Amino acid sequence: MTTKNVLILGGGFAGLECAKRLRDEKIRVTLVDRWNHHLFQPLLYQVASGGLAMAEIAQPLRSILSRQKNVTTIMDHVVHIDLQSKQVQLKDGVLGYDYLVIALGAKTSFFGHDEWAQHTLGLKSLDDAMAIRKKVLLAFEKAESAVDPAEVKKLLTMVVVGGGPTGVEMAGSLAELSRIVLKEDFRQIDPAQTKVHLIEAGPKLLPLFPGGLPDYTRERLQTMGVTVHLDCPVSEVGEGYVIAGGQRIDSGIVIWGAGVEASEVTRTLAGIPLDRGGRIEVRPDLSLPGYPEVFAAGDIAALTDKNGVKVPGVSPAAIQMGNFIARVIQNESTVSARPTFGYWDKGSMATIGRSAAVVSFAGIQMRGFIAWLMWLFVHLVFLMNMRNRISVFLHWVWSYFTWQRGARVIQSSRNP
Amino acid sequence: MTTKNVLILGGGFAGLECAKRLRDEKIRVTLVDRWNHHLFQPLLYQVASGGLAMAEIAQPLRSILSRQKNVTTIMDHVVHIDLQSKQVQLKDGVLGYDYLVIALGAKTSFFGHDEWAQHTLGLKSLDDAMAIRKKVLLAFEKAESAVDPAEVKKLLTMVVVGGGPTGVEMAGSLAELSRIVLKEDFRQIDPAQTKVHLIEAGPKLLPLFPGGLPDYTRERLQTMGVTVHLDCPVSEVGEGYVIAGGQRIDSGIVIWGAGVEASEVTRTLAGIPLDRGGRIEVRPDLSLPGYPEVFAAGDIAALTDKNGVKVPGVSPAAIQMGNFIARVIQNESTVSARPTFGYWDKGSMATIGRSAAVVSFAGIQMRGFIAWLMWLFVHLVFLMNMRNRISVFLHWVWSYFTWQRGARVIQSSRNP
Repeated sequence: MTTKNVLILGGGFAGLECAKRLRDEKIRVTLVDRWNHHLFQPLLYQVASGGLAMAEIAQPLRSILSRQKNVTTIMDHVVHIDLQSKQVQLKDGVLGYDYLVIALGAKTSFFGHDEWAQHTLGLKSLDDAMAIRKKVLLAFEKAESAVDPAEVKKLLTMVVVGGGPTGVEMAGSLAELSRIVLKEDFRQIDPAQTKVHLIEAGPKLLPLFPGGLPDYTRERLQTMGVTVHLDCPVSEVGEGYVIAGGQRIDSGIVIWGAGVEASEVTRTLAGIPLDRGGRIEVRPDLSLPGYPEVFAAGDIAALTDKNGVKVPGVSPAAIQMGNFIARVIQNESTVSARPTFGYWDKGSMATIGRSAAVVSFAGIQMRGFIAWLMWLFVHLVFLMNMRNRISVFLHWVWSYFTWQRGARVIQSSRNP
Repeated sequence: MTTKNVLILGGGFAGLECAKRLRDEKIRVTLVDRWNHHLFQPLLYQVASGGLAMAEIAQPLRSILSRQKNVTTIMDHVVHIDLQSKQVQLKDGVLGYDYLVIALGAKTSFFGHDEWAQHTLGLKSLDDAMAIRKKVLLAFEKAESAVDPAEVKKLLTMVVVGGGPTGVEMAGSLAELSRIVLKEDFRQIDPAQTKVHLIEAGPKLLPLFPGGLPDYTRERLQTMGVTVHLDCPVSEVGEGYVIAGGQRIDSGIVIWGAGVEASEVTRTLAGIPLDRGGRIEVRPDLSLPGYPEVFAAGDIAALTDKNGVKVPGVSPAAIQMGNFIARVIQNESTVSARPTFGYWDKGSMATIGRSAAVVSFAGIQMRGFIAWLMWLFVHLVFLMNMRNRISVFLHWVWSYFTWQRGARVIQSSRNP
């Protein structure tokens, strides 16, 4: 009986779940992440809009895994994966493995227009969220002292690109921030004059939600003051403007929630098939073709499961994949004897604003206040630890009754 | 009856208190701060050591003052004050005034060795606190992957300069972080091997505390594993080392809590007497000599009050000064008819670690657990708003029982 070395790259939902399931004396786990924390990404937009503090949606990986003595956590960047020699090159070292789990997630995609990145703000990490928060709050500060009305108008115009859950939640949150939270706070400007544009290339918002939910979402956002642009692909992004559907919008703040692609490390995997988004096309057991000891999980993996369902890039899928791989490794089954991954769709939910959300699960569609309560409940339950749960709950109760947002602090005074 | 323009520079304890007291229709108040928030500085060290989140000790000035419609808040830097023409030059504009209140506070002082600033970390702003948190947490991360034992030892050596409350609280907090909070989190290093040095130039810690409290503080810190150096002035600080009392300590982390001096704007005040620390020597009514319409309050003012007490640079003194000035302005009294400021000493307190603090007020000295409970109570009561109070209280209760710290998140992965 020898000890197996399992190397997990990435401490997101997939990688962390896999590490937690590998509670086995015969297994030594090394978990590598470039951050020191696991991030509860579904609530990242609330950090960006000043509703929650960083620490409420992030938890140190070390502290989550501190009692699991077979796990070593390393904070480092993955540079290159050599499948032949079974070695992973980090920025500050090299690690070998018996089993490798690639769970490095996805990054913002600009569909071939990487030059747009410099003019837009992504929303994938705490740094991203803090950058959005700072830029949004500073826009109001600058507008308060600005003299030129065109300048004020531009400062108070914010663009969100992408009509998926991230875009919808971000746009709704910005509308509430400007129309309600900040309403009383300024003397020269009226924050309610802020224009929030939500731009979607396709014909509807939340395209993966069934029935009337996309239309409900659009109407609800419009009631909240968001200008929704459908069938409106972005053709150009420059310093201070976006062109979408032939229309130019002048805005200093362009938040990009339109698409994701796999972490670029997948390009270093010689001979492994990738899909258009750079995702690894894994086998039905989530291993890489020709490398039964190497797995991919989460947003970095592309798979149509045993039921013919294309597994979506959502956290329940990532958790299920991480869990599945841990079981395969623990059983040390040969490739032919391995089970086949099946995705269990737990439904989808997105929040539009206070008291309004859409939920779809097991053929049932819900909207409005009840859906919003469900959204709150599910997100509280899945938050990592007790303390964060209580703190976030109190934050939400507090904000519900006062319309205040607690985390409206600009950390650095160096204006960009 | 004309409207008076009151310009307040600085939204710390003095400036904010003054603005809040000037609730008067006949007065128009403009409050300028380079940050968008009021900071509860007495708890800043807890942000630096990962115990509290930023938003828990900072609150947007706009949101504090949103209902007080006679106050306009501007986020900007003060560049120059021209007392003759009654104008204040900001980075992005010029403001005039009928009354001026200078409450810009203090900054870290290196006693003439400004070149030490680049090798040390101050603790005056949220940025400072986040920089310390990041550097301390990254030191443990780096030590975990370091191979050279000398390198590990250096990474796990942390120096705090200054034996006043800031230094004592910071050193105690770092000792607990390394010896208890992080105890189980690493596999290659033992965080309890961390050496925390507290360096004080004078013969005792907390020199302003009476009786046996300084000795108690030293003993208590030593029990917690802090190496206390007394009579040990710092003679040199360089990249990765400190020389104090002839002894060289190799350390990548040097936290400077040794002294403060007034904000440099005081140097632009032509003809106004300043003390050695650059503080404005105000008249008994807190006005500037020769300028009855200009006041200074808080850490930027130097004064021996009507009872012969040198007013210390603590938050109760700042609040009392802000309050006093607001009353003088409201009464529009002539200089000769103005009252004289008297400082009401509410006592001093400092926390050393869990269950241990020192308190001195009205001739009474307390130490240990009861003093620590008093410290908790007073700090919770004075925290700005209800939501923060509840959140901080929960944080402290949680940490007390679990020894976890909630805010151990490193925001940026770009290693320094």
